[in-house]
Amino acid sequence: MREQPCLLCLVAQGKIQAQKVFEGDRTIAVMNTREPQARGHVVIFPKHHATALHEMDSRDLGEVAVVARTIANAQGLENYNLLHNAGALAGQTVFHAHFHLIPRWSEQEGLRYSWKTDAGFDQQESYLKIREALDAAR
Amino acid sequence: MREQPCLLCLVAQGKIQAQKVFEGDRTIAVMNTREPQARGHVVIFPKHHATALHEMDSRDLGEVAVVARTIANAQGLENYNLLHNAGALAGQTVFHAHFHLIPRWSEQEGLRYSWKTDAGFDQQESYLKIREALDAAR
Repeated sequence: MREQPCLLCLVAQGKIQAQKVFEGDRTIAVMNTREPQARGHVVIFPKHHATALHEMDSRDLGEVAVVARTIANAQGLENYNLLHNAGALAGQTVFHAHFHLIPRWSEQEGLRYSWKTDAGFDQQESYLKIREALDAAR
Repeated sequence: MREQPCLLCLVAQGKIQAQKVFEGDRTIAVMNTREPQARGHVVIFPKHHATALHEMDSRDLGEVAVVARTIANAQGLENYNLLHNAGALAGQTVFHAHFHLIPRWSEQEGLRYSWKTDAGFDQQESYLKIREALDAAR
């Protein structure tokens, strides 16, 4: 049992108001009214508590992804980002798994990120680690 | 029929080599060896062609999300980002839907993005538009 009430659990339980655009069996989608990165920025999350993606139930993952598609199409989006932040170091601030659907209306309005084209990180060690873990789980 | 062969369709067909870590019924996961943003940066995509998330089949969406979880757990990740870019304006450069799982090992190594805390975008119009579209589809 968590000691502090979880913000998104409280939204899921209807104990905190939010500008809800969709509620399914397993998921809720709300307008991000606190820190919108663009008009139409929606946050989608499972009702069932999980800290982040790696803890989520498969059915919750499936419904979250389908709801993201539904909301993108409801807005007629062609340019957008879907972002999940897991862990404080990666920018997570609310520790109940959630996914940001952020329209990119212009250079200025939307998710701003930088992309290294020549960072040259060596992938070999990670490749072997992932393959070993997946082989062991088989 | 597309005139130019699609890079990720060719990978799915085995006509282009890639450092594959996982292949399921519907999806493939490969190491990002071209522009890794961190060690362990993996790209997950559906075999079936779709330009971006909003065109993807529900089963493909579900499997992509579950594979992302599998790869995150295989690496023991606690800090990471999952990013999907749709449309050139949002940074998409390969026009076959794909999802970046990017470990965040440190401030320097991982996805770098900025987050506006006071952009103040008005969400009311988007809220009404989404609700109207979802009500019409019901």
